[in-house]
Amino acid sequence: MQAPPPEHCPGVESEEAGKGSACSGCPNQGVCSDPNKKLEDPGKALVVESMKDVKHKLLILSGKGGVGKSTVTSLLARYLARINPDSNFGVLDIDICGPSQPRLMGALGESVHQSGYGWSPVGIEDNVCLMSIGFLLGSVDDAIIWRGPKKNGMIRQFLSEVDWGNLDLLLLDTPPGTSDEHLSVVSYLKDDTNPESLRAVMVTTPQEVSLLDVRKEINFCKKQNIPIVGVIENMSSFRCGHCGNTSEIFPAKTGGAAAMCAEMGIPLLGSLPLDQQISKACDSGEDLTEFKNITTEALEGICSKIMASFS
Amino acid sequence: MQAPPPEHCPGVESEEAGKGSACSGCPNQGVCSDPNKKLEDPGKALVVESMKDVKHKLLILSGKGGVGKSTVTSLLARYLARINPDSNFGVLDIDICGPSQPRLMGALGESVHQSGYGWSPVGIEDNVCLMSIGFLLGSVDDAIIWRGPKKNGMIRQFLSEVDWGNLDLLLLDTPPGTSDEHLSVVSYLKDDTNPESLRAVMVTTPQEVSLLDVRKEINFCKKQNIPIVGVIENMSSFRCGHCGNTSEIFPAKTGGAAAMCAEMGIPLLGSLPLDQQISKACDSGEDLTEFKNITTEALEGICSKIMASFS
Repeated sequence: MQAPPPEHCPGVESEEAGKGSACSGCPNQGVCSDPNKKLEDPGKALVVESMKDVKHKLLILSGKGGVGKSTVTSLLARYLARINPDSNFGVLDIDICGPSQPRLMGALGESVHQSGYGWSPVGIEDNVCLMSIGFLLGSVDDAIIWRGPKKNGMIRQFLSEVDWGNLDLLLLDTPPGTSDEHLSVVSYLKDDTNPESLRAVMVTTPQEVSLLDVRKEINFCKKQNIPIVGVIENMSSFRCGHCGNTSEIFPAKTGGAAAMCAEMGIPLLGSLPLDQQISKACDSGEDLTEFKNITTEALEGICSKIMASFS
Repeated sequence: MQAPPPEHCPGVESEEAGKGSACSGCPNQGVCSDPNKKLEDPGKALVVESMKDVKHKLLILSGKGGVGKSTVTSLLARYLARINPDSNFGVLDIDICGPSQPRLMGALGESVHQSGYGWSPVGIEDNVCLMSIGFLLGSVDDAIIWRGPKKNGMIRQFLSEVDWGNLDLLLLDTPPGTSDEHLSVVSYLKDDTNPESLRAVMVTTPQEVSLLDVRKEINFCKKQNIPIVGVIENMSSFRCGHCGNTSEIFPAKTGGAAAMCAEMGIPLLGSLPLDQQISKACDSGEDLTEFKNITTEALEGICSKIMASFS
């Protein structure tokens, strides 16, 4: 058991901290009475030090699950790396309970090496590296049954103990929702002296149920003062392989992402079609950006807007 | 600030609890020294009392987001209610950060009434009622930015302070993953004297990335001793509205759900096709089970297996 605080402890955040009658004799009296004491999580300083050579960070958010956050993250990382061969990109999978980046990036079964500088992320291409809890599991079927504080500890480790090196952009693939993982990663990465270094993109399908959750996520970013680069509409349409006609599988009822973006004053970065090739490539970890196809055509416009927002 | 425990408190779980020298004078000495004291969350007793007329509980789990957990939950509830008009069904949406049941069930904008018996769930049909945090928000766009403990408190309230009345089956729509919400709901609902009263069904798409996460969820249930009714494969195929041909949009690489079920010894309950009608009905809250269609045909087999597992 941890030593209990002394009776009548005024609390570390109180003005009386270190000065109250209960403080005399307490081993923390010196720290508490220091007028320059930091109430911040001491982990934040470690994160700042470890990430000092990571120029920009981009959160990939969605609200709803299964709209393609992870797929879009891996496509963005690969396409950005391909068209910017002199820049370095990293992907951090903070979906602790459902990591899918190792499979999507074709790195299933790889393991993470420990060096004097910390964990080394797994190299995907010459200029793309990946870190995920998926690399640390004994079996891919293992369930991570963790409550918030343990997940937060893992995220802190990923940010402070991974040897990211020099990166132009770190893409962070998040779990659905607005909870522990999101609050933690924002509190660690937000730099009030350089608020533009952390930005967010939203992924949604044209469906109303997905747009509903993206609105929540946009409001989350506004509350946390995170600039939003824009919205990517995924699975916008499906072209039948038999007849070549296009169907809207997840039909937009109220104008889809375009209408929502106009209403909320957020740019629409582009739309990615629902393509069987993508689903297959996701399962096999294949790189779709190697050849020209309907996905890379859509990625071109999206990626140039993302790069422009950082320069 | 909460009153700190006395110095040298042996801890409530210790054998010395209430007997140590530090215990004399402590206001909790009586409780601690009681040999019949309960270490369980006191909320559990409230949940048991409140849920005493709810015969069976069914968790709808998936691991991965966006595979259709919420859609499947609403379809199951509506179809079960339709074919069992003398039974009562309830739906509890424990996806605190992304509640979609109010929209799916066509109850957007409804509000929850408080009575002497607690919150009254919203009536969807004569024998289906629904409770969701979506009913408690000022605006549907509001983001619930809560860490684990607050979400757990909300779930406890939903289980102990909602006037569920007499229900034959309560369906619980969960968020993706295996974290706070899942652990909380299992700890509150698991009844060691009647372990069959809480069961789980899994929802997956045929894709490898989704099957991967369902395996984690199956292992979660095994660890928690929750009987698994079976797996529902969703979005198994898409029939083009133009040419009538069927395409596998999320193609199965390794045999899909059927192969995984065989390998893990879990029944496959059935497959639901990917149907534009479902997507539209989800956005509008329309009831698809009213008329015979490809979805109700698939639901028939699935629901009879679920009902059989409870009798």
